[in-house]
Parts: sequence; structure tokens; C-alpha cells
Amino acid sequence: MKQKRFILQESEIPKQWYNIQAEMPNKPMPMLAPNGQPVTVDDLCHVFSRGASEQELNTTDAWIDIPEEVRQFYAYYRCTPLVRAYGLEEALGTPAHIYFKNESVNPLGSHKINSALPQMYFFKKEGITNVTTETGAGQWGAALSYAAKLFGIEAAVYQVKISYEQKPYRRSIMQTFGALVTPSPSMSTRAGKDILTKDPNHQGSLGTAISEAVELAVTTPNCRYSLGSVLNHVSLHQTVIGLEAEKQMEMAGEYPDVVIACFGGGSNFSGIAYPFMRHNFSGERHTRFIAAEPANCPKLTRGEFHYDFGDESGMTPLIPMFTLGHNFRPANIHAGGLRYHGAGTIVSQLLKDKQLEAVDIDQIESFDAGTLFARAEGIIPAPESNHAIAATIREALKCKETGEKKTILFNLSGHGLIDMSAYDQYLAGNLVDAAIDDDVIARNLKEIHEQIKF
Amino acid sequence: MKQKRFILQESEIPKQWYNIQAEMPNKPMPMLAPNGQPVTVDDLCHVFSRGASEQELNTTDAWIDIPEEVRQFYAYYRCTPLVRAYGLEEALGTPAHIYFKNESVNPLGSHKINSALPQMYFFKKEGITNVTTETGAGQWGAALSYAAKLFGIEAAVYQVKISYEQKPYRRSIMQTFGALVTPSPSMSTRAGKDILTKDPNHQGSLGTAISEAVELAVTTPNCRYSLGSVLNHVSLHQTVIGLEAEKQMEMAGEYPDVVIACFGGGSNFSGIAYPFMRHNFSGERHTRFIAAEPANCPKLTRGEFHYDFGDESGMTPLIPMFTLGHNFRPANIHAGGLRYHGAGTIVSQLLKDKQLEAVDIDQIESFDAGTLFARAEGIIPAPESNHAIAATIREALKCKETGEKKTILFNLSGHGLIDMSAYDQYLAGNLVDAAIDDDVIARNLKEIHEQIKF
Repeated sequence: MKQKRFILQESEIPKQWYNIQAEMPNKPMPMLAPNGQPVTVDDLCHVFSRGASEQELNTTDAWIDIPEEVRQFYAYYRCTPLVRAYGLEEALGTPAHIYFKNESVNPLGSHKINSALPQMYFFKKEGITNVTTETGAGQWGAALSYAAKLFGIEAAVYQVKISYEQKPYRRSIMQTFGALVTPSPSMSTRAGKDILTKDPNHQGSLGTAISEAVELAVTTPNCRYSLGSVLNHVSLHQTVIGLEAEKQMEMAGEYPDVVIACFGGGSNFSGIAYPFMRHNFSGERHTRFIAAEPANCPKLTRGEFHYDFGDESGMTPLIPMFTLGHNFRPANIHAGGLRYHGAGTIVSQLLKDKQLEAVDIDQIESFDAGTLFARAEGIIPAPESNHAIAATIREALKCKETGEKKTILFNLSGHGLIDMSAYDQYLAGNLVDAAIDDDVIARNLKEIHEQIKF
Repeated sequence: MKQKRFILQESEIPKQWYNIQAEMPNKPMPMLAPNGQPVTVDDLCHVFSRGASEQELNTTDAWIDIPEEVRQFYAYYRCTPLVRAYGLEEALGTPAHIYFKNESVNPLGSHKINSALPQMYFFKKEGITNVTTETGAGQWGAALSYAAKLFGIEAAVYQVKISYEQKPYRRSIMQTFGALVTPSPSMSTRAGKDILTKDPNHQGSLGTAISEAVELAVTTPNCRYSLGSVLNHVSLHQTVIGLEAEKQMEMAGEYPDVVIACFGGGSNFSGIAYPFMRHNFSGERHTRFIAAEPANCPKLTRGEFHYDFGDESGMTPLIPMFTLGHNFRPANIHAGGLRYHGAGTIVSQLLKDKQLEAVDIDQIESFDAGTLFARAEGIIPAPESNHAIAATIREALKCKETGEKKTILFNLSGHGLIDMSAYDQYLAGNLVDAAIDDDVIARNLKEIHEQIKF
């Protein structure tokens, strides 16, 4: 029998996260405080936990211990399976060997829990009683709500309004875990009111939800903010994915020629990619890394490297990132988790340094890919993950042309069981691609050129 | 670190199913054909595959080989984790050790795929090109749709109308796999028309959907019917659950004092229970087995052992079963998969012989239990599975009173991510219990006494 799944025992769950900041060829440029100086741990502590803030700015330790209490909760669901996608290979007729890391079997159905747990752990340890956050598709909000409940912390989640309306089940999931869920933009914050005053029909974006969540955190006693992507400490936590996958690929007797993940803020991409990338830094390997972003939010392929705010209202520090401008409003594609205007500092630096490639994928191509995968492998992927599958299929079909037996590894970041209305629309032929004009991007970038002088 | 999950490698996936018919103290009474004679394999073959029909009536072989092709597809997702529910234990403050077998991580989110695969395998092997089935909550229909796609068979699914309307995502999932989905009762069959003529507002039941699916199968060329519960061959296939769990409990160094599962037609109960029950037959063990049924469909606790039809229209053979009468219409609780009037022949005989116990659980108690479990373990259970959790909690709280450290194992048959509207109603305080009057049950049973003279 051909081995399909590669599983580690609990004792093999990583004991340390991999901190790529210590080993990447060029360190990321610093985030800047309002005074133009690099942000410090003390600056970040007003918003985040001290534990996360220290990790955020740690550029020296390549390996950081996973606290035992976090590791115990990781054991609730890890390791996740590494799966050989025989079904997909056969459907494509490719000589490529395709593997995927199945993060869809995690609690709440995505990789997001990997960072929610350590973030809540730090809060509890530091005596923080309340947390705020934003959520796009709802995957992060769901994971955070559960993790907060585990650590006895009260959670308030700002969910992007369009997602709140399109995906009522995600709201229900967060509420089942006791979280307070508010559609953003809302009238509950100054930032929300300002946005709604300018545009009463604003559908929300990760940028608006972050503004509201940060504002609530800094104006509420004993409350901090938690972010599910973009930041360095989030990427750090997610490296459990790639570290496990590395051991599992070894069990399969292979090493990936190509590693692929979808890309929103970078959390799942970082998680699967960075542990493998370290072998490129050492020159030992020459793996290609591909970030697959939606064509209607193409910050990596068509954005610009520039200092920009992480949120719509400009409350965050300035972040050196590939960005479309913090006022950029992507169309309402179903992959709500990928509708973010910027990339994290690490991945932005790595892209500048050509350590990774980026591709953009149209919405319909992404659902073609996801549906093919579902029928071949029995897992309905999240709309976000469909982008990784589409990029994988492109690579696998190239192998079919050339006859190359490449080994491709992609991250299945989550399942799509809460996103069936999107599949309904796809099957009914009602999905559209949402192309972005060059001049829209140029206009947004011009705004940040004028506004931000770093 | 306390070990949380117990995982088998692929090579340890069972190579044989356990056929309890060969070893139970008293064999089940025979199903009867319209002529009053025990049904034969040839009778069953008009409706089912020959492979499944032979398994159905096999009362001699305790172990039946799992075909290699089926085992290869089992490897797509098995083994499923055995999980120690430390979170739930702590929430209850019980000295009991609680384990659950997590079938919710299977493709399509429930144990149903375990039988869908071998059933489709037999069809393909026998040259059958089309399959019909019924589905209540949609778990079986979803699993069958995927398995049919894998084996290149066209699937037509009759979904109980109330479920079709309450759970549109399940319909979408089946359609994503290319199945034709029709709400039942429908005008597409004689049986459906008859039912709708008598009651145009009929909300559907497993009984109506089975009538329609069987009719379509026997009137369509090269088409057969497939059932996801009740029958002996389905129970047989599901024993992979218990056989894995047995090895996994051994890894954990424990043996269950109590084994618990929810009960609709018996598929997941049989799956987890029968492999352990064989050690009771041999006198080696004295495990208690508890089937948890909904209070509004209480065939095991308040029904009667009698010959009855498996469907509303009386198209099936007569089945010796604990039943509420095939015309019994349970209220529209959210656990759609448990709304069936009868139990399978094996489990009915075992209940008569006091090899198992049954308890009934009210809807609100089931959601109290499911929500507590979700918050403790991070998995939102299916409304069906909530009944098993509620029965588990009852046992664990008894241990808390007595101080006994019993080992309790339950089957988490599926997740509830497609059932969030039910949780919404629960959280809003809008769920109701739906008690059944004794005279309603008596009236239904009187009908079958008059109609069926066996």
C-alpha cells in the first residue's frame, strides 16, 4: 500500500519555534514609532503582551523555546498530518509528487490557533484580562475566541462587516466560545465612526477592523490587542507547521523543490516556508518558495516596498512593507483572509532579497483549483487555501509538460466548510474575477508617498 | 507533558472488519421478504450491491478482510486520533478519565465515510454506475457524494426536507462533489407523491427519504441503493473505529469501563462498541455500553421490539427491531441524523439480551453538553454527537459523586460546523425540548401491531 499520510507522535511536536530574523541575509528594517524612531519593546507593550513584543523585536535568537503550557495545548491537535496528494496528482496526470500539510484539521479549522495559543498564554501570564482583535474571514477570530476561553480571557472581536454578513456561521462559532463580536466599521469606536462618517456604506476591511480593535485595546483598562498575521511573532509561532513538515518529509524520504502557501498577511506562508528557507540560507538547499496572493489584492506582485500603516486609520507604527497603500480597498472576494493591503516586514525583506517568489491568482482560477482538489482528496478547502492549490496546480502542470518529477509541498491552511456559500456561487457560475486597474494602485501608492516621508 | 492524543501509523490501520454477528450470544432474527420468508442475498441484490448483501447476511465469519483499495482510501484520513479529554475532565472536576475517538476530522466531518467507501467500492467492482441514497442531517449524503466521485459513480441524494432547508451548506457540499440533491418528500417518485398528497406540508424524515431513494434505485437501470446506517454491513464497516480505539486505548495504558455513542440508526454506536463488546462475550471484560438517543425519538428506551418496515412507505423488507412505528414522526430537533424510528437488527437483539443500555437525552441538555465540550476541547460537535457527550457527562458526574476513577470512552461522531444555526438558537435561548407523549408512541405501535402480523 502506498503511504498516504505521515504522522508524528506527540513527543515529536517541536519544542522550539524557528526565528528567521536571526538568520535571514538582511534583517528587516525597523518599524517606526510616531516620533520616527525604531519602535521598542516598551512601545509595543502598550498594545501587545510583553512576551509577544520581545519576540517581535528579537533578531538574535534563531530558536525560541515554546512554553510548556503552550506545547501542552499544541498537543490538543498537533501534529497535523502531512499528506501525499495522490488523488490530485492523478487528476492532473502530473509526474510531480505533491504533498500538503493539513492544517484544516486543527480546532476551528485553520492554522490560526498556532499563534492564538501563545498570545493568550502571554496575556494570562502578564495578568491581562481582556483582549481585542480583528478578523477577516473569521478564522483568526474563531481561533482567538477559543484560545482566550482556554486561558480565561475575555475576547472582543471586530469582524470585517462584509464577512460578518457573508459568513454568519463564523460569528456563531466565536459566540459559542463566548466572544463579543462586532461588525467593523462600527459606531463603537472613534475610528469606526470616522470611517462611517466618510462612507456610511463602507463594507469593512482588515484595515478598518484593526483600527477599531487597537483603539478599544488602548482605551480599555487591562486590555491588549492581538493580531493573527503580518507581525514577526505571529510568523514565529506558525513555524511549528514547517518544522513538523520537515520531519514528515523526511519520513516520506523526500525534500521539497517548491514550497507554496497562500498569502494574506503572511502567517501561514511564514509557517510552512521559513523552516525550509533556513537551508537555502546555508546554501545546503535551493528550494523555491511561492506566495500565492489574490489577483485583486496583489501587494507582492504589484505593490511597492514602502513604509506604511498597518491599519486604515493610521494608528499602528509605520511598517516597512510591500503595500498597496493602507487606504486600498480590495473587492469583496470570498478569500476574506487575503484582503489585506500589506505584507509583514520579514517577508517583505525576503521578497526584496529574492528569497521568495509571488504569483497572483484570479478568484475563478482559485475555485477551479479548490473544487478539483476537493473531489480528488475529500477536503473542501478554504477560499484562501484555494490560492495555494491553484499555484501548486500551475507548478504541477509545468512538470507535466517538462516531465520533471518535482516535489511540491503546499500548506492547506484551512477548510472551507464555513464558506459553502462561495462554492454555491462558484457552482452556479456566479463568481467573478475582480481585476485591479494599474491606476487604482498608483493612486493609492501616491497617497502614501505624499503622507509618509520615510 | 501529559499525553493528549494517541495516534496509529498507517500500517496499523485495521486489515479486517469485525463481524459481531458471528459471535453475539443470540443471532439477530432474520429480515423478512414480502412473502414472509427470510430475505436472501439474491433478494437484497436487487437493491444493494452483492458485496454488501453478502456481508449483511454473513453470520459465520467474525473477521472480514477489508479490500486493499478500500484500505488505501481509508489511509486518506485514518487512523483518527484517540484523545484524552483533559479539558472536559477539568471542567467537570471529575476523577473519571474521559477519552474520545475523534471521527470529526474525517473527510466531510463525520464517521460516515467509513461505510461510504466500501459500499462504492462494491458498486464499481460490480459494474453499477448510479447510486441513490437518503440523508438526514446530510453527513451521510456528503460522505457518499465524495466516495461516489472517487469511484466514478453518479450519486442522487434525497435529503430530508427540513434538513435541506435548515442546513443549506450540506446540500452545497454534496453538490460540490457533483451529486444531484433533492429535498424529500418530492414529486420525483411515486412514494414522494403519495406522501405529499396525504400531507402537502410534510417536513420529511429518514423514512420518507429512504422510500424515495429505494424507489428510484429499483426503477433506474444499473442503479442501486446505499444506506448509511441501520444495516449490518454498515455496522461492520464502522468497526474500524472501535478496532483502532482498542489499540489506542492500549497505548494509553487503559481499557474502557464504559463506551458511549449517540444513536440514530446505530452506525457510529456499532462502530465504537462492537470491537470492545467481543471481550464481554468472552467473559474477559465487563464494559458497559451506552447508546444515547434523543428524547424525542426514543426507540430504544420507549419503543418496542417488533417487525417493522425501515421506511415510511413500507418498501423495505420487514426488520426485527426496536421501533416507534415506521409512521412515527419525531419533532424537528437539530440532530437530524438521530430522527429515525427504528434500530438495526443486531443492536436490537443485543439490547434484548441486555448487552447494552440506552439513555435518552433532551435537546437542551445535549447542547449544554456540546457547548461545554467545545469550550474545553476546541471542537464544536455535531448535534448528534452532543447526545454522546451528554451521556458521558452524566457518567463522569456520577464518578465525581462516588469518587470512582472510571475510564469512559465516547465516539465524537462528527463536528457541528455546518450546524451553527442550531448553536445560534441555543445561545439565544430559543431551543426547546420536544417531549413525546406516551399515547403518541402507543398509537404508532398499535398501527404496526395491526398492520404487521409477524
